[in-house]
Amino acid sequence: MNPFNFHEKPVPGKISISLKKDINNKKDLSLAYSPGVGEVSKKISENKDYVYKYTGKGNLVGVITNGSAVLGLGNIGPLAAKPVMEGKAALFKKFAGIDAFDIEIEEPDPKKLVDIIISLKSTFGGINLEDIKSPECFYVEKKCIENMDIPIFHDDQHGTAVVISAALLNSLKILKKKINKIKVVVFGAGAASLSSISLLIDLGLKKKNIFIFDLYGPLYRGRKNITKKQFLFSRKKKFSRTKAFTNSDLFIGLSSGNILEKKYISKMCDNPIVFALANPIPEIMPEEVIDVKKNAIIATGRSDYFNQVNNLLCFPYIFRAALDLRSKKISKKMKMSAVKSISKIGSSNSLFSKNKILPDIFEKKLITDVPYCIAKCILKEKLNKINVDLNDYKNFLKEIKL
Amino acid sequence: MNPFNFHEKPVPGKISISLKKDINNKKDLSLAYSPGVGEVSKKISENKDYVYKYTGKGNLVGVITNGSAVLGLGNIGPLAAKPVMEGKAALFKKFAGIDAFDIEIEEPDPKKLVDIIISLKSTFGGINLEDIKSPECFYVEKKCIENMDIPIFHDDQHGTAVVISAALLNSLKILKKKINKIKVVVFGAGAASLSSISLLIDLGLKKKNIFIFDLYGPLYRGRKNITKKQFLFSRKKKFSRTKAFTNSDLFIGLSSGNILEKKYISKMCDNPIVFALANPIPEIMPEEVIDVKKNAIIATGRSDYFNQVNNLLCFPYIFRAALDLRSKKISKKMKMSAVKSISKIGSSNSLFSKNKILPDIFEKKLITDVPYCIAKCILKEKLNKINVDLNDYKNFLKEIKL
Repeated sequence: MNPFNFHEKPVPGKISISLKKDINNKKDLSLAYSPGVGEVSKKISENKDYVYKYTGKGNLVGVITNGSAVLGLGNIGPLAAKPVMEGKAALFKKFAGIDAFDIEIEEPDPKKLVDIIISLKSTFGGINLEDIKSPECFYVEKKCIENMDIPIFHDDQHGTAVVISAALLNSLKILKKKINKIKVVVFGAGAASLSSISLLIDLGLKKKNIFIFDLYGPLYRGRKNITKKQFLFSRKKKFSRTKAFTNSDLFIGLSSGNILEKKYISKMCDNPIVFALANPIPEIMPEEVIDVKKNAIIATGRSDYFNQVNNLLCFPYIFRAALDLRSKKISKKMKMSAVKSISKIGSSNSLFSKNKILPDIFEKKLITDVPYCIAKCILKEKLNKINVDLNDYKNFLKEIKL
Repeated sequence: MNPFNFHEKPVPGKISISLKKDINNKKDLSLAYSPGVGEVSKKISENKDYVYKYTGKGNLVGVITNGSAVLGLGNIGPLAAKPVMEGKAALFKKFAGIDAFDIEIEEPDPKKLVDIIISLKSTFGGINLEDIKSPECFYVEKKCIENMDIPIFHDDQHGTAVVISAALLNSLKILKKKINKIKVVVFGAGAASLSSISLLIDLGLKKKNIFIFDLYGPLYRGRKNITKKQFLFSRKKKFSRTKAFTNSDLFIGLSSGNILEKKYISKMCDNPIVFALANPIPEIMPEEVIDVKKNAIIATGRSDYFNQVNNLLCFPYIFRAALDLRSKKISKKMKMSAVKSISKIGSSNSLFSKNKILPDIFEKKLITDVPYCIAKCILKEKLNKINVDLNDYKNFLKEIKL
């Protein structure tokens, strides 16, 4: 089946609305709508927490974009972004039982976009920002987090960061290397790259071992084209590709297709890790890497090669935990819990090896283990305990259900 | 069951998301989301009409409020409005198969509210404005209509107007009276009242026969408190309740409970029509009307009396037609078609009588007949024909499906 058929038939689109309650007679109607619903609204107007008890808000995520950086297509606008956002919403439901609804906003200006998103805080229980271009996306996410009391997550940044981190931890496990010792070359200095580097530093990567290149060349402090965020991860002095790749342990590509030559891979250490994640064409094809480093651990963004780095391993489960515990933020600790849980599921698989560093997308342990692992992390902070168990979890859920 | 149980259990809320397509393996995933969805987005970016072919936009209505005039509760805000909007969305699905999603916007300022709603034009195929306070609602609706190419409908105004008009046509049929001869007293000069009066005038009611009262008394041109919209329907000179009610044929109440005394009903004609629609307490209770005018035709907004005037008889079917024909507006002619179709279904019922002037809410003919009747009206304009038949309809649908 071609993608057009899939999206068109038997009915256009991927998601629809269904009813949680029967409305089959006048009594049902009087409960679901006027006059019965009036009492419910009144109660929420008296205590806003009741909105979680009587409406779907607590299981509802808005998948929000302005269509300014859609997949590899760029700034195609909100209308053309709709099939992607609908698809994302469908994945939330399929993989974590979360009701998600796509909102395409016609607003290129980041300040106005922020105001619009903030105005929707009563509608949703969480917001997944999607396909908003860099560097505006940093501002949009920051302002939304500051002004809303529901979890906000820009998946292009943090979902990618979590899955790359999990893939790296498992690669290092196979190679028996430590994260604080590795040398890293990164292609791309956009939202996903910078967020990934930031999370990897939290996990132990040393800043001095990081060499970043983007469209304008190596990222160093004296460079003309450099954003505030990029500056944080830049090196003091200019450097060459050769210098960067020599004896490096890890390549992370979040840039564009077919821009990395074999000769640089040759300069890497003996068993390098190569995450060439540009989509649909990686920075370098896996076959070319194998040509010069036959034991390399390779990951791409593609489903037709080993080791697909796919955000789907992460975002449904982070939101599942955040919604269930009614968390107001998605903290660094929550992301690190997700990394550890995903990598553990991957490494405890019987097929765990250099060609299978991550769990399968349809792995059932993802929904049973990852949200619980994140939830424990949230609870530790909330209850101020070093360890929490299932009872703490159950008690907490009971409490927030009023 | 009390309303709280209904809204809370087994899961909070009334609507959820369901999947239109299976996503059970990697192949499905690659079609529903990346990389397959990229081609679909690209096609829409080249021709925006394809959004109707490949996404759910064409069957999707946003139920939008800022919570400034919710039911009889007033300005309780967007969060407390959520159960009502969710309920409305559920009714769209139940009665017309329309996917509807509730959007609660935190924005009291009508100008900013308009900007936010307009920015959502890529998201929805139609917008049902709900529970926005008067007179701001007129501005909001007007600006949305001017700036969006999808149907916009403020149900509190026009849904009410359509159902009142259908109820009136059938009452007049029973009484063998003509609309251009009747004298009318109206209580309330808000959005629903003014829109109803306007539609009744389109149907033949004479402006000189209308006497309106609101909180500040009779509506006449010299009055202090009078809006532009109210001025259009005001009388030249001040008038008393007694003068207004004497020999009047119809009372329409869209004001507040228990404010009309029996003595005024006594002054009406022999077989008056009394639509006392304030909710949940009518302007005058049906029993009191019967006390003084035993043959009165009485309607209320309540489900526990005869003749419930309920917008649910109208809005799902108007949107069904507008979406199916991809109409860019909901015109006066479309509303008049709805009035005629609803009144016809009511009057052709075997129980048609003064106690059964309207179709039952669960009447199946509403979904089979009303949208088709409205669709024919749209087609007549589009095809510039005096009459259209089922073939015209089928051909048109084929054409807009590209």
